[in-house]
Amino acid sequence: MDATYDAWAGPTVGDLGELVVLDRIVRRLPAGSPLLGPGDDCGVVAAPDGRFVVTTDMMVHGPDFRWAWSSPEDVGWKAAATNLSDVCAMGAVPSGLVIALAAPQDTPVAVLESFADGVRLAVDALSPGCGVVGGDLSTSATFTVSVTAFGDLLGHDPVLRSGARVGDVLAVSGELGRAARGLTRLFHEGVDAAGEPSRAATLASGADADPDVARQRRPVPPIADGPLAATTGATAMLDLSDGLAIDAGRLARASGVTLSLEAALDGAVLDEVALHGGEDHGLLATFPPDTALPGGFRRIGVVLDRGDADLVRGGVAVPTTGWDPYADWDGAAG
Amino acid sequence: MDATYDAWAGPTVGDLGELVVLDRIVRRLPAGSPLLGPGDDCGVVAAPDGRFVVTTDMMVHGPDFRWAWSSPEDVGWKAAATNLSDVCAMGAVPSGLVIALAAPQDTPVAVLESFADGVRLAVDALSPGCGVVGGDLSTSATFTVSVTAFGDLLGHDPVLRSGARVGDVLAVSGELGRAARGLTRLFHEGVDAAGEPSRAATLASGADADPDVARQRRPVPPIADGPLAATTGATAMLDLSDGLAIDAGRLARASGVTLSLEAALDGAVLDEVALHGGEDHGLLATFPPDTALPGGFRRIGVVLDRGDADLVRGGVAVPTTGWDPYADWDGAAG
Repeated sequence: MDATYDAWAGPTVGDLGELVVLDRIVRRLPAGSPLLGPGDDCGVVAAPDGRFVVTTDMMVHGPDFRWAWSSPEDVGWKAAATNLSDVCAMGAVPSGLVIALAAPQDTPVAVLESFADGVRLAVDALSPGCGVVGGDLSTSATFTVSVTAFGDLLGHDPVLRSGARVGDVLAVSGELGRAARGLTRLFHEGVDAAGEPSRAATLASGADADPDVARQRRPVPPIADGPLAATTGATAMLDLSDGLAIDAGRLARASGVTLSLEAALDGAVLDEVALHGGEDHGLLATFPPDTALPGGFRRIGVVLDRGDADLVRGGVAVPTTGWDPYADWDGAAG
Repeated sequence: MDATYDAWAGPTVGDLGELVVLDRIVRRLPAGSPLLGPGDDCGVVAAPDGRFVVTTDMMVHGPDFRWAWSSPEDVGWKAAATNLSDVCAMGAVPSGLVIALAAPQDTPVAVLESFADGVRLAVDALSPGCGVVGGDLSTSATFTVSVTAFGDLLGHDPVLRSGARVGDVLAVSGELGRAARGLTRLFHEGVDAAGEPSRAATLASGADADPDVARQRRPVPPIADGPLAATTGATAMLDLSDGLAIDAGRLARASGVTLSLEAALDGAVLDEVALHGGEDHGLLATFPPDTALPGGFRRIGVVLDRGDADLVRGGVAVPTTGWDPYADWDGAAG
């Protein structure tokens, strides 16, 4: 357990053993209404469409979160929210989650209970009725969470990143840049004199109460807008996990088009942080030109014939390269 | 990277970056024939039954495997095999896998390639046609793999551990005790003078060539026998992951019965290792009394009215408690 999170006391997972810990966690997780929940070799989930979508994402203490900056409840929220976001980005409605978690033996059980609370709060807020149908509890020197999420396509085709057509409208749903602004503030003000993440510094600086920091800790992806986009005829869609520019580049290359941002959006509406900041988990989608954009989608550009660049803004290419977890992360400084 | 596995050289994941590493791994994984494979926000899997079963299992370097004793290919095999086993224990046919993997930045890419080879070899041997439909690649101080597997029920009900009825035949499929014998040999002969796992000692002792050690590294669950049991009318079933006695206890308590082992099986056929050794991933099932046992199933006992014990053998209670990953593992000695 990170020394900066010594607010968490009480018996550890090593003290209580797997069965007691499991029981205490499972009762706090969202149950949903699966055909079969946790307790057998597998859970059973309904797939009325005859197909299901599936995504998986692992969060590791150090590169993906730090106890100095995020509470266990924050980590539970984020683990659920990011996976739900990938499900909705296919146009699917979330139908279930499984969670594998490995914690050091000296982790207070209260940390795992709080993590479970975060998962439940996120599901209740973002996709009520989606239950945790199974999981695995392990021990590790490094606190690690792996969430896998499923979704039902409701009879329509999955919305791929490769379907954008020339003339389509480019639209976005959800917030842009807030999570990145929050993370930047934590990196600048939530550190000690040696530059290490520090809970005390985060509290003393006021960063702890910053609404953008809250968004970094607990992203609020527009889950309902995913299936809404699919039923409205979206031609392509993806989850904005790494930033608008990077993810727009992925959509452009997969579809063989160039995306052009409205010149009118320059400045305050689509500034550099909104363009390059990740982890907001909004949705980027393309729609046929005459579509009344559904839900929270707003127009930010158009789809052009493939040119030299993936993404342009006022005729100028926008870089669409980005963060690489292996190349850019210094484990020792993490 | 564990110093005992320095046979693995070449560029590291940190050297090459996520995209190159992903490309090199994905091409070695079994593709299967999903409706949509890796590369978008989600994969898409067919669920012709209108339901699917799902299980997840995390393997962590230290408590779950050691590079001194297992190659990356062994770890890939075991990660796939154990999850496929849980799917078949519901009576389902495996329909897909997703894999999340976190490796230290100094891990040679060849290790991840070898891991992927192990997954492919296991799937080809145990459940050909089942593909990896998605995944996630992260960085961690601790090598960690999380596999989630799905299966289709082919129109019949899932076989739960709670369905055993008095008078049913108790039967087992797969090997018993071999993986435990292999692990015991590794703990005794595959260690250095300080008792630490040692590749050199494993090789020098001859343990490396022991067929039981091979089973510990690469379990061979009888995957096809799971759906076969379901179509033959099995009333209860579970995967033998923690040992026959422990898992029999789970089935007995869930079903509200006592399981009685045939007295004639005492001794060589069902010795103490077969009874208490885990990780073989065979199947324990109950069938109506007049059933011709399918596939590799053989009779080992009968289902009795619930008595004082979960499991009896010649009228004497057999302990059904077992291994707890938190209570029994010493991380420092792992």
